[in-house]
Amino acid sequence: MSRSSICLAALSAPVAANKLGPPSPACQAQPSGTGGGRGGGTGGREGLSCTDRVLVRVQDLIPEKADQLIWLRARVHTSRAKGKQCFLVLRQQQFNLQALVAVGDRASKQMVKFAANITKESIVDVEAFVRTVEQKIESCSQQDVELHIERIFVISQAEPRLPLQLEDAVRPDGDGEEEGRATVNQDTKLDNRVIDLRTTTSQAIFRLQSGVCQLFRDTLTEKGFVEIQTPKIISAASEGGANVFTVSYFKTSAYLAQSPQLYKQMCICGDFEKVFCVGPVFRAEDSNTHRHLTEFVGLDIEMAFSYHYHEVIDSITDTMVRIFKGLRDNFQTEIQTVNKQFPSEPFKFLEPTLRLEYTEAVAMLHEAGVEMGDEEDLSTPNEKLLGRLVKEKYDTDFYVLDKYPLAVRPFYTMPDPNNPKYSNSYDMFMRGEEILSGAQRVHDAQLLTDRANHHQIDLEKIKAYIDSFRYGAPPHGGGGIGLERVCMLYLGLHNIRQTSMFPRDPKRLTP
Amino acid sequence: MSRSSICLAALSAPVAANKLGPPSPACQAQPSGTGGGRGGGTGGREGLSCTDRVLVRVQDLIPEKADQLIWLRARVHTSRAKGKQCFLVLRQQQFNLQALVAVGDRASKQMVKFAANITKESIVDVEAFVRTVEQKIESCSQQDVELHIERIFVISQAEPRLPLQLEDAVRPDGDGEEEGRATVNQDTKLDNRVIDLRTTTSQAIFRLQSGVCQLFRDTLTEKGFVEIQTPKIISAASEGGANVFTVSYFKTSAYLAQSPQLYKQMCICGDFEKVFCVGPVFRAEDSNTHRHLTEFVGLDIEMAFSYHYHEVIDSITDTMVRIFKGLRDNFQTEIQTVNKQFPSEPFKFLEPTLRLEYTEAVAMLHEAGVEMGDEEDLSTPNEKLLGRLVKEKYDTDFYVLDKYPLAVRPFYTMPDPNNPKYSNSYDMFMRGEEILSGAQRVHDAQLLTDRANHHQIDLEKIKAYIDSFRYGAPPHGGGGIGLERVCMLYLGLHNIRQTSMFPRDPKRLTP
Repeated sequence: MSRSSICLAALSAPVAANKLGPPSPACQAQPSGTGGGRGGGTGGREGLSCTDRVLVRVQDLIPEKADQLIWLRARVHTSRAKGKQCFLVLRQQQFNLQALVAVGDRASKQMVKFAANITKESIVDVEAFVRTVEQKIESCSQQDVELHIERIFVISQAEPRLPLQLEDAVRPDGDGEEEGRATVNQDTKLDNRVIDLRTTTSQAIFRLQSGVCQLFRDTLTEKGFVEIQTPKIISAASEGGANVFTVSYFKTSAYLAQSPQLYKQMCICGDFEKVFCVGPVFRAEDSNTHRHLTEFVGLDIEMAFSYHYHEVIDSITDTMVRIFKGLRDNFQTEIQTVNKQFPSEPFKFLEPTLRLEYTEAVAMLHEAGVEMGDEEDLSTPNEKLLGRLVKEKYDTDFYVLDKYPLAVRPFYTMPDPNNPKYSNSYDMFMRGEEILSGAQRVHDAQLLTDRANHHQIDLEKIKAYIDSFRYGAPPHGGGGIGLERVCMLYLGLHNIRQTSMFPRDPKRLTP
Repeated sequence: MSRSSICLAALSAPVAANKLGPPSPACQAQPSGTGGGRGGGTGGREGLSCTDRVLVRVQDLIPEKADQLIWLRARVHTSRAKGKQCFLVLRQQQFNLQALVAVGDRASKQMVKFAANITKESIVDVEAFVRTVEQKIESCSQQDVELHIERIFVISQAEPRLPLQLEDAVRPDGDGEEEGRATVNQDTKLDNRVIDLRTTTSQAIFRLQSGVCQLFRDTLTEKGFVEIQTPKIISAASEGGANVFTVSYFKTSAYLAQSPQLYKQMCICGDFEKVFCVGPVFRAEDSNTHRHLTEFVGLDIEMAFSYHYHEVIDSITDTMVRIFKGLRDNFQTEIQTVNKQFPSEPFKFLEPTLRLEYTEAVAMLHEAGVEMGDEEDLSTPNEKLLGRLVKEKYDTDFYVLDKYPLAVRPFYTMPDPNNPKYSNSYDMFMRGEEILSGAQRVHDAQLLTDRANHHQIDLEKIKAYIDSFRYGAPPHGGGGIGLERVCMLYLGLHNIRQTSMFPRDPKRLTP
């Protein structure tokens, strides 16, 4: 078989004539399956592509390209027929430009009609001349040029009725309500995530999220951390069995890991010294709030330290600050795109990071009129209030709260050796909400046993965990960061479902 | 409270006097909890560390450091008392050196006895002079220096009976059998992974694995791919329900994702164009073989292409070649360390990567005497044999097998438009074993429906999947790489449990 026929058919088979009606040479709209009318040929490099044709990117279409004949693949964002002309807006992600099909030497009346009938969100290939425009096209990202289309092919046709309109999905809440303009509620967006992901806001959110992961890993790799992979199916629920999902595992039962903590700690006991991992964690909590998911992505750190667990806090805060700076410096377009729909104040942080002790925080809350005990855990409203008080006093959206009361922390938390009511543990907060929980861990099997007994935990169930520390374990600590929370709070969003591509909560398992 | 007392106690609390017996000033072995005899003090930077003491690294102890007084934290690898002296080998990961406690001005008889009684694998802090040696110490990584210990503290004491000996765990199979030297079987290693991870072999394997992930991501990020996070808990088993783990999800049931494929494809339909993800995938297959795990790490790629699905193959093979080169250039020490225990030939690859068509492979097998049909799937023995034939003929351990028979591939695989018996799909092989399966995907809802019907798949169960393609979908393809297989086969190992830190198979759920 000839190579050219393979390559053309490979692309066009499913959208060939059967979807677009009989070939209509007048409008050149048929992506032929025969290799006949598509240019190209066998000129391409063996095995790569079978055409010399180069597809340009929308963002590269600038006045310097004027009068060039180019090929472009893009979505039809909008189309509007007007007499003998049809105006299209063609889109690639956040970039778009105007394109025109006009009756004349190269285009027939049928071709204009054909173009006008292409459904929104369909993907098309166009051959077109780039032309400068006299008046800036304010509604497009490419304001100085438009395309004069010579040929247009439908690569993939969208159904005519879209479940949501992209322009509605990016409209700020309340905007244009007087004119009866719609916004799209969150469930509709999530139910139709394939379309919602195409909006400028979603594109920006998830590109920034990709950036957070990269900055996290790059920073830690530079600091000498090793990436590890920890199992998600585990034989025993490590923290007593609450809030854990059960899995049928052949003839027995297993659980989904609520955190990689035991495994991170085993790696420390296994001499990796500093480790991180990025992966899903599972919480079977029936919490239907703006900030809880049943499955989220944990950015986890664990490290041996030399003399003081504050070395661990410093490593984590350094990493967070590197992430904040990286986002500020490299994702400004994304931040501004999200802000257009969801306005928020720029994220503020200090260097070095502010670290408060729990007792100081309680004193600030007391001063603000809150009644709470010294060893009581922070309620969500108090956490938020404390965030506001800290922002007022220190002008930062990021801080560490250190030395939590021992009673409110898990059994493996190292007690403060100087004050048995407190512990060597900490949380970190962004815009007043917790994004990380961490601690120095008990690294001595006997002390761990004592602490587990104190918490009335069945020792039999955590035997493997305790045994990990019997053969020499360095002092160590760490923490787990919620990726979706970091993105939500950095961007000043108000619902974690906005920063989870396919969120899972007690009521949502699809798509 | 004073800062110095916090910092010292934070470290020493669990291993204080109760573990080491009453203070014995003669041997200076008590890591005091009072801040009394440990040097340091409050000179450290607020919040980081409370001592000026710097711990050196074993690998930095070279003759240039001779006669310096240093502090070191390390494990006791071995200890041997000999009259008035005790020789220790101190270890940090793959580096170790000899250290000596000798009765004299600075050390008492009791101190030598104390040192001799420190259990193997305990973690100690020593203050010592670096001294050059006259005769190279062949058994250590630091052959030109030794330490003359002034003070020694036990930071964490190992139990006296270790479940396995590190030197046995790294002994090549059959080596030293005549002298009655032991090797450690794999289950014992895995049951005691905390200790097994400390061996030079394990350290090397998992540092190399960390490198594979980094090279994979860095290459794709450079190529413009976006990292995505896909859910692992899903509402419907995408490929018909076989080999899938069931999860109790509040009042209903859910499944563990067998691959991120649907979600990768949704991201392509959502205009991310090129995406990758690294995460766990789950297979409830009751396969107890050297290369199957029930949970493994998938390195997944999906991308829209312009004209031919070979663009996808090229992106993946480029990425693999970048990984192979990165390992060859940056992980030579690790490769050689693993080879000491598990000898293997260096991994060979070609540029560009060899791509064979399925029919060519079948012809090669026929020629070698194998009886198989043209559209029959490759059996595991035939896969291996083909690997040997390819190696002989082309001198490569890595190649692509393209154009699989349509009948042996999943319903969402794009048929070859020129030959309905074949498909636009491919596998990739390392040392004759499959590491990746991939294909151009059907991106047209109608064709996908037809193909699902042909496979007698319940359309109701895959409605969400098919609907993803109704609103314009670019031609696209991808594949999923098994991380543990890549590491196993690159290193020429023979069991995937060696490259999974905490492997899961039908019979193993712990640790």
